[in-house]
Amino acid sequence: MTSKIIDPYGSELIEDYVKIIKEFGLDSFNLKEYPEPNRLMRRGVVFAERDMKLTLKAMKEKKPFYVLSGIMPTAKKVHFGTKMVVENIAYFQKHGARTFCLIADLESAAARNISLEEARKNALEFQIPSYIALGLDPKKTIFYFQSENKEVIKLAYEASNKITLNEFRAVYGEATPSRILSALTQIGDILYPQLEEQMPGVIPVGVDQDPHIRLTRDVVRRMKEKKFFLPSGLYHKFTPSLDGEMKMSKSKPNSCIDLPEDPKEACKKIMRAKTGGRDTLDIQKKLGGEPEKCIIFELYKQHLIEDDKELKQIYDNCKSGKLLCGEDKQNCCKLITQFMNTLTGNTEKARKNIDKLNFISFK
Amino acid sequence: MTSKIIDPYGSELIEDYVKIIKEFGLDSFNLKEYPEPNRLMRRGVVFAERDMKLTLKAMKEKKPFYVLSGIMPTAKKVHFGTKMVVENIAYFQKHGARTFCLIADLESAAARNISLEEARKNALEFQIPSYIALGLDPKKTIFYFQSENKEVIKLAYEASNKITLNEFRAVYGEATPSRILSALTQIGDILYPQLEEQMPGVIPVGVDQDPHIRLTRDVVRRMKEKKFFLPSGLYHKFTPSLDGEMKMSKSKPNSCIDLPEDPKEACKKIMRAKTGGRDTLDIQKKLGGEPEKCIIFELYKQHLIEDDKELKQIYDNCKSGKLLCGEDKQNCCKLITQFMNTLTGNTEKARKNIDKLNFISFK
Repeated sequence: MTSKIIDPYGSELIEDYVKIIKEFGLDSFNLKEYPEPNRLMRRGVVFAERDMKLTLKAMKEKKPFYVLSGIMPTAKKVHFGTKMVVENIAYFQKHGARTFCLIADLESAAARNISLEEARKNALEFQIPSYIALGLDPKKTIFYFQSENKEVIKLAYEASNKITLNEFRAVYGEATPSRILSALTQIGDILYPQLEEQMPGVIPVGVDQDPHIRLTRDVVRRMKEKKFFLPSGLYHKFTPSLDGEMKMSKSKPNSCIDLPEDPKEACKKIMRAKTGGRDTLDIQKKLGGEPEKCIIFELYKQHLIEDDKELKQIYDNCKSGKLLCGEDKQNCCKLITQFMNTLTGNTEKARKNIDKLNFISFK
Repeated sequence: MTSKIIDPYGSELIEDYVKIIKEFGLDSFNLKEYPEPNRLMRRGVVFAERDMKLTLKAMKEKKPFYVLSGIMPTAKKVHFGTKMVVENIAYFQKHGARTFCLIADLESAAARNISLEEARKNALEFQIPSYIALGLDPKKTIFYFQSENKEVIKLAYEASNKITLNEFRAVYGEATPSRILSALTQIGDILYPQLEEQMPGVIPVGVDQDPHIRLTRDVVRRMKEKKFFLPSGLYHKFTPSLDGEMKMSKSKPNSCIDLPEDPKEACKKIMRAKTGGRDTLDIQKKLGGEPEKCIIFELYKQHLIEDDKELKQIYDNCKSGKLLCGEDKQNCCKLITQFMNTLTGNTEKARKNIDKLNFISFK
């Protein structure tokens, strides 16, 4: 942990991550094993991993390995969590991973009652361009729609007799038919890249998605004849809600910034965000602010400021009482406006090139 | 019920069928609505139906309707239950039904852990030729493998959010993931013919398969936007075990005749079958036998004697004490030998023409 560049600025917002590591049986993120770590890795936003050894070995030895993510083609918005997933995918992609991006149209039909046609339209018009705008290299990415990939379905069926209903329940709480179907399909997706060539692979996710990885690993252990590698996991923290709750969620729209969102709206929300400010201006000037409790600082750290030195400067200025919350929020507003404009422009550009993607063509 | 040709010879073997009709909410089979009824219909072996009205109307008015059955490509044997299903399919096929025969390779992977390759091989080498030998007209039948039919999968996913886990449990008792997946896929299969053209259709089954039909009907009611017709059901009694139990089952091999089976083996089993004979020969000559309690007579009625007059003659001869069990079993043995030889020959012939089948080709 010592090699993290801004480790001392670790967030106090969510102390539960240590507990999560313990409860889920994860390993702490081991920064020194990752060459040229990305912003999220350097800053401890990527906080945990699961069984990364073989995947990292393959990566360093330039042997085949894969990284995979799924797109849920439902709402016409993504969120900061998606952004982190894409950034971590891009990291492995840059380091040689075969990159698979699947569109979970079957799952969206099962779980959200969205027709496959609508799902396809959403994905092509919105989610895929967003992923590309957020850093996915479309030239190096293999895309597919679940509903067209029979191999994934076959794997899902084969997996279905390797798991009991009680195991589902233990993992997901409630085991509805549509959830069972979705989970089995995700297992199919996670293992699909290994059908062509058996190789290690990593699934970067928010920690709430770990159950799928755990379940897939259980199934792999019970499918000995297939000789699949156990998939690795890489976990990022949540982007906190603007009111300081653990996770930004669209259920509280005033505390949630969508990607994209009208910059003016985003700024309004930022102005009301929880900070690490003191009770009075005088006290703050004297004692300094508490950036480790500040959502604005967390947004900088996770998303808005790439340069570590710049981030440290803000941290120091806050700590010393030099930078006050009002000014800081103005600054954040500028950055988010810039971010949204760039995102919108890049999404538009990606949308125009959508017919150049590498979709797997299935017979 | 009065128009059944040999109604008075109704079996006493399984009185539970009246209870089944009540419990499952079925209608009694209404023979007079079926033009040119087949042997099973004439003799009350087909004993129940569910919501046949629209299907029969379409049939009589020569409008589109369909009949469908699935092949489980597992063991290299079929049984008398399969024979009855095929005969009822053939009935509707002769009366103009579009006929679909699917190979449940995904289900066999989920429920029986049989690989898709093995399932395909089994179906082509064994089950499909058997179905043809038992009366399916291959020229008028549309075949497909579940694993190749994406539309079925899509329907399964759409169905998954129309049923709760408790409903599954109420229908199937135990709701394992693989059973849930299988049931959802069956729903997809049952409705698939209506994707092309909305039309009524009938699924002929043993009554133990009614849960799938019930569940499909529930789903159709909840998928209003799809405007599917509710599928109809037609139900045949079980072929009883040779020891007189309700259902012939391979779990008791000595009481079960497989299709095909070596005729000598089949004869041996028949010699040990339960009959309607009296305690002593003298009593039997005096009082006559009880064909309604006799498995041999049930085999004649269900499977081995096509001609109603011939069957009645045997019944009368037994009742009068003229035909005794030993002679009768010899006769049954001759018939089963003939049956097995014909079946084997026809299966072999169908196997040779397997490449001429109408498999749906999926893009």
